[in-house]
Amino acid sequence: MTNYYLGVDMGGTLIKIAIVDDKANVIEEAVVNTDINASPKSVIENIVEVFKKFKNYNKVKTIGIGIAGDIDFKQGIVRLSPNLPKWNKVQLKKDIEKLTGKKVFVDNDANTAAIGAYWLDIKAKADNMVCVTLGTGVGGGIIINKKLFRGNSGTAGEIGHITVEPDGRKCNCGNYGCAETYIGVRHIVKETIDLLKTKKSKYIVKLANNDIEQITPKLLSQAAEKGDVVAKKVWNNAGEKLGILLSDIIDFFNPDCIVLCGGISNAGDLIIKPAKEQIKKRAFKTAAKACKIVVSKYTSKLGVVGAAMLVKN
Amino acid sequence: MTNYYLGVDMGGTLIKIAIVDDKANVIEEAVVNTDINASPKSVIENIVEVFKKFKNYNKVKTIGIGIAGDIDFKQGIVRLSPNLPKWNKVQLKKDIEKLTGKKVFVDNDANTAAIGAYWLDIKAKADNMVCVTLGTGVGGGIIINKKLFRGNSGTAGEIGHITVEPDGRKCNCGNYGCAETYIGVRHIVKETIDLLKTKKSKYIVKLANNDIEQITPKLLSQAAEKGDVVAKKVWNNAGEKLGILLSDIIDFFNPDCIVLCGGISNAGDLIIKPAKEQIKKRAFKTAAKACKIVVSKYTSKLGVVGAAMLVKN
Repeated sequence: MTNYYLGVDMGGTLIKIAIVDDKANVIEEAVVNTDINASPKSVIENIVEVFKKFKNYNKVKTIGIGIAGDIDFKQGIVRLSPNLPKWNKVQLKKDIEKLTGKKVFVDNDANTAAIGAYWLDIKAKADNMVCVTLGTGVGGGIIINKKLFRGNSGTAGEIGHITVEPDGRKCNCGNYGCAETYIGVRHIVKETIDLLKTKKSKYIVKLANNDIEQITPKLLSQAAEKGDVVAKKVWNNAGEKLGILLSDIIDFFNPDCIVLCGGISNAGDLIIKPAKEQIKKRAFKTAAKACKIVVSKYTSKLGVVGAAMLVKN
Repeated sequence: MTNYYLGVDMGGTLIKIAIVDDKANVIEEAVVNTDINASPKSVIENIVEVFKKFKNYNKVKTIGIGIAGDIDFKQGIVRLSPNLPKWNKVQLKKDIEKLTGKKVFVDNDANTAAIGAYWLDIKAKADNMVCVTLGTGVGGGIIINKKLFRGNSGTAGEIGHITVEPDGRKCNCGNYGCAETYIGVRHIVKETIDLLKTKKSKYIVKLANNDIEQITPKLLSQAAEKGDVVAKKVWNNAGEKLGILLSDIIDFFNPDCIVLCGGISNAGDLIIKPAKEQIKKRAFKTAAKACKIVVSKYTSKLGVVGAAMLVKN
């Protein structure tokens, strides 16, 4: 008999919900808008209503939830979530278990993305894998011996704060030169705006309708693909720093593969090519050769599928 | 009944041999000089003779051997060993199994040091640990869930080549700014000699009897303890780079503890204090708090004890 698991990806804009089977195939799915002003209680009641409308809901064995922020995995408590300012010390596991009678797992979204990538991109075929989430923040999830690795205090995979430039840009965390300050969305956009002050760009300002506030990574990809010198420089710089970060991971961990996901990974070769050049130059040779670098084909589904599969970890 | 295991630490100068019990207590031990000009065959025959002279040899269940170099752990082959130039493609496992009739394990010395530190310094009480060997080279061994972690191609823990300064010193591996180029013995001595060209040192040249060839890390520790400005600067620089390296490891892996061993670790607070300052400044706070930094008290025994305990991995 096939087992079914329900997953929830609690984003700041959308809540994605899906039922998946043992092999992580999506059987049913739904998306609802996130009401960040609503109380956690009403949000929870609403999503449970959505659960119960699924045709296969009664067959669901367990429920998994991924959410950005500081999560107590063991107790299933959301200590705080930057995207959901009202969510402070929410007993998410307890509340949903009460409403559904099913066992609930809660974890942070970098971990659920890693589990999602392990099932969808790697088809559960790697032993040791690192998933690097490239978005507003830069995060990571680690799979060791086919299981999620959380570390001693639950923060394993905080790779956005690995130093890639010792005297580099100041990060919110207090450190200087964190990876996130070179390859996080905000910093890539800021670097572009800074470069535009002294360098001439053929396409960026045009594509942004003369409003630098409209510059996004997507726009920078479009500009770079048209040959824009500034956009290409921005991607090249970010790729170099990503390459240093990935080389460090390869040297330390010697993984079977690294999966890149999140909005920035959509830039594809614009960022991957310079990253791979750095890996070739910097990483330990046999380990680099043994490590496949994969760009996720399922970025938008990793969170919800990974959440559903939390039970297997 | 207590089980006994025999360990061998094959160094370029000395070969250490010991029998240990289940708890890694040393029961008997011996040391012989390494004859680097002898054939591997005669070296192997000689050490097996030493084995057989141990009172408890008949009770020994398995034999483990640690050796620097490129080791095929599964087959027990020494592909090459930098300290033993005649050791090319030596079937160490097969040869010793033939001579002893006991099961043999062979691994590289960074891994045996990690296992040794896990038993001697940590008393097998950590789940996840990193052992950092600070010597001529800078190496590492990783314990995950109480077992040695080798990675996909057997090179996990190659932390000496993690980048700590992207545009830094050129390393033999081809990369720039590897940790080893700042905290390896040779580079620490070279930095001292460079600094002496422009800076006045009160004790270094005196302690070295006016011969800069005699400068060693031990001498630099003595000079720094007397207050020598150059020696203190050298240790401070090395400590800062060590701190960046350890911060990267803490962010990625969130270990229970990190054990530092090898000759350079004898500098103690001279290098540890600036390293800890960097960790405080750079590493992810909860992970840094959760990670104990320990200087090994058993540096000279880690290899031989860890080799004996290889069977448990």
